[in-house]
Amino acid sequence: MKFILIGTFLLSTICFAAFSQEKHNTAVPEKGLTKVSIMYPYAENKTFNIEYYETKHMPMVAGFLGSNLVKYTIEKGVASGIPNQPLPFMAIGTFYVKSLSDYQAAIGPNREAIRADFPNYTNITPVILVSEVVK
Amino acid sequence: MKFILIGTFLLSTICFAAFSQEKHNTAVPEKGLTKVSIMYPYAENKTFNIEYYETKHMPMVAGFLGSNLVKYTIEKGVASGIPNQPLPFMAIGTFYVKSLSDYQAAIGPNREAIRADFPNYTNITPVILVSEVVK
Repeated sequence: MKFILIGTFLLSTICFAAFSQEKHNTAVPEKGLTKVSIMYPYAENKTFNIEYYETKHMPMVAGFLGSNLVKYTIEKGVASGIPNQPLPFMAIGTFYVKSLSDYQAAIGPNREAIRADFPNYTNITPVILVSEVVK
Repeated sequence: MKFILIGTFLLSTICFAAFSQEKHNTAVPEKGLTKVSIMYPYAENKTFNIEYYETKHMPMVAGFLGSNLVKYTIEKGVASGIPNQPLPFMAIGTFYVKSLSDYQAAIGPNREAIRADFPNYTNITPVILVSEVVK
């Protein structure tokens, strides 16, 4: 009898933990977050080492952002969606942050270190879009 | 005693459901998906009605894509991330799909309906990027 009660208590705890975890997974909706997208336009004679970008550059920058960073993503340009048009971007890296001013405050003192790493993976000058997630 | 056993059984079921649900929430990682991003470049005298885009246009297009569509997002351009540079894009709508060829097959017969809706929310000719989610 005692064991069953203890077992029930343990099960309740695990159950509660599972629900909490589930809540945690859905608790960070993207809506309302700020996106900072670093977009690398395609052009002839431009190069982009996506492996270096994924394993070195983006983790370095993400490390500067602390708890303001909700997540970051990397996408590799494949084609234009319009026939006979050139590829618009070779790659895009995106930081999803809670606060743009906190992002800027974190990047400011590290700007030179970030720029100094560019030649290690690309010769493209990026375009940077700050946007708000609407949906 | 019998009630405790039934209670334990019910709790186990709920617990299992909670874990399954949790798994379900994390079972669709973006990595490996194809993104189709419809990007609306900013320029003077260009307009974009994001409310119409969110409530009418994007749901219409999403409706053509069926189960190939994992999710879609909408972002509103706020600023360039580089001081003294113009806003790169007024808005971007993105479809995350499992298969690019299925996307193209679904859009093909509806292209005219999609284009005919453009003047209802914008006078911008979009750039379309097909990309692969790397991370």
